[in-house]
Amino acid sequence: MDPRIREHAEIIANHSVDLQEGDNVVISAPPAGQDLAVALHEVVGDRGANPVALTRDARAQRAYLRASDEFETPEHTLALIEETDVYVAIRADTNVTETSDVDPEVNAEYSQANQPILNERLSKRWCLTQYPAPANAQLAEMSTEAYENFVWDAVNKDWDAVREHQAQMVEILDPADEIRIVSGDTTDVRMSLDGNPTLNDYGEHNLPGGEVFTAPVPDSVEGEVLFDKPLYHQGREVTDVYLTFEGGEVVDHEAAKNEDVLTEVLETDDGARRLGELGIGMNRDIDRFTYNMLFDEKMGDTVHMAVGRAYEDTVGEGNEQNDSAVHVDMIVDMSEDSYIEVDGEIVQRDGTFRFEDGFEG
Amino acid sequence: MDPRIREHAEIIANHSVDLQEGDNVVISAPPAGQDLAVALHEVVGDRGANPVALTRDARAQRAYLRASDEFETPEHTLALIEETDVYVAIRADTNVTETSDVDPEVNAEYSQANQPILNERLSKRWCLTQYPAPANAQLAEMSTEAYENFVWDAVNKDWDAVREHQAQMVEILDPADEIRIVSGDTTDVRMSLDGNPTLNDYGEHNLPGGEVFTAPVPDSVEGEVLFDKPLYHQGREVTDVYLTFEGGEVVDHEAAKNEDVLTEVLETDDGARRLGELGIGMNRDIDRFTYNMLFDEKMGDTVHMAVGRAYEDTVGEGNEQNDSAVHVDMIVDMSEDSYIEVDGEIVQRDGTFRFEDGFEG
Repeated sequence: MDPRIREHAEIIANHSVDLQEGDNVVISAPPAGQDLAVALHEVVGDRGANPVALTRDARAQRAYLRASDEFETPEHTLALIEETDVYVAIRADTNVTETSDVDPEVNAEYSQANQPILNERLSKRWCLTQYPAPANAQLAEMSTEAYENFVWDAVNKDWDAVREHQAQMVEILDPADEIRIVSGDTTDVRMSLDGNPTLNDYGEHNLPGGEVFTAPVPDSVEGEVLFDKPLYHQGREVTDVYLTFEGGEVVDHEAAKNEDVLTEVLETDDGARRLGELGIGMNRDIDRFTYNMLFDEKMGDTVHMAVGRAYEDTVGEGNEQNDSAVHVDMIVDMSEDSYIEVDGEIVQRDGTFRFEDGFEG
Repeated sequence: MDPRIREHAEIIANHSVDLQEGDNVVISAPPAGQDLAVALHEVVGDRGANPVALTRDARAQRAYLRASDEFETPEHTLALIEETDVYVAIRADTNVTETSDVDPEVNAEYSQANQPILNERLSKRWCLTQYPAPANAQLAEMSTEAYENFVWDAVNKDWDAVREHQAQMVEILDPADEIRIVSGDTTDVRMSLDGNPTLNDYGEHNLPGGEVFTAPVPDSVEGEVLFDKPLYHQGREVTDVYLTFEGGEVVDHEAAKNEDVLTEVLETDDGARRLGELGIGMNRDIDRFTYNMLFDEKMGDTVHMAVGRAYEDTVGEGNEQNDSAVHVDMIVDMSEDSYIEVDGEIVQRDGTFRFEDGFEG
């Protein structure tokens, strides 16, 4: 076994989920990510914890969703998660477009029925990571070996050093009232962050980590955004998503390809038309776009916004928490002809931060 | 997908577990059996039931067991099973000797800690089946395609016709007091079946089905048995198991290969030294030995006995139920120079039953 797989299992156990003796652990993995699941079983055994393995298989999920027409919350799965201390989800695809022929509306209904399980899971020590499977390499337009190197470099890092670097941006955003994001002629959006804390993602819930993120005040978002990086949602590519916000709500939306997927997302519920997250990608070791949100949103010269659910910890006391069954991230490239303004002051220009060398104000 | 996979999923749903709308279903499968898991998800969706998929992976299990030194009942898995209505376990190997370097004692400790989960599972509608993976074909010394044909012929059957055929043997054994099994010079064993019901296995809990079975009265077993078909236990082959019984207990045991595995089994607990099952294989479609107990024990010209736990339903009121953490089946070839005597009357000779053509008394 590639020693970087065992190294990653140790990082998950020690850094991300703080694995303890006696913990009841769920390891959720697809067949293509089985090597990492094996390494995790080894670590779980070594620590005296109790594993159970769930199969996260897109083929089975597709077969189930296409055959079903009604969904209820599966009480046995909920009972499992309620008694779980640690949940590790491994992503690894055999075919990234496996669920491309599932009706997005069916998918949305399934997500809604499973919301109580997701909520329960998010209340535990949990972590989501990526195993470098060939299909994910293909999506990234890379050889399997080059992609393996890319993934292990991005996830097997000194996460304490990452935390310190990113803390500089948290210090800027945490006390901020308003942020404005401008890129070319197509993106100019303002939103209030007033009272909402900014969190430092250094590889706890997500591996890789490498962003700082917060929640906009839901009604405050005004302007327009062209998300120039494509989005993969439920096995389908949506390109050039263009959203117009008024009073916090998406009042107009377009996409060059698969606009119906975007429409379905926005129509899931009221919260799906408002922003639940603003994030600033800061992980310079992620040096290319790989069509995988878990990595893409952490890229250095990007910002991302998510329609849908806001994370509770990013919402200040007394502020509204946007609620929705979905949380869909989309990315803006900030590497050229772009800037971020915080309370009238430019803090990033063309991807370089104020606190970094070479910033020219 | 091979249409016989979908056909098998339908047999599991309709015949074996009587799948109902709203059932909470567990589908437990290894990566090599994923095709059948996909077909089952389709059927589960079609019936309006709720699936969750467990990964039954020997590599992960090996990694966990080798790293662990203490075991407790995993409460999250128990909670899952308690809320489950239907449990389908699929066997399919990538390497049948994957757990061959796990200490048998560790395996036994793990089994003991997981006994409450097994008990809970057996109280549900459940079924165990086989997917024809290449490693299982290799163990059977067959090509993958020939083995696929063998498996689908054995499991996709008219199980009602099987039930009727086997009922003739149930009628003989059910009222019987004593059974004697003789094969060559090496096997001559007697045991009481007094008051213990004989069950007809026509593909409900096991696919394939094809045996009738009961429990011996624990203290009644006297004589000696050479199990001339090899046994695979925890990834290791045990050959020529020879057991001597006195007063129901194994007082002497030998094996030509891997005797230590046999010794570990017998030393698990008190019940592991006594018989929990006597079965008569009656499935003539299983026409060869494939080193897989799920099939081998159903072969037409065989009987099998299991040390360890007796099935509750095979023990008559007031009779003792043998209790143990293990249940390990072993097979005697009855095709030549062999007979079965029930209350002094020969009911099978060289594999042919009294109620079949060609029996000569």
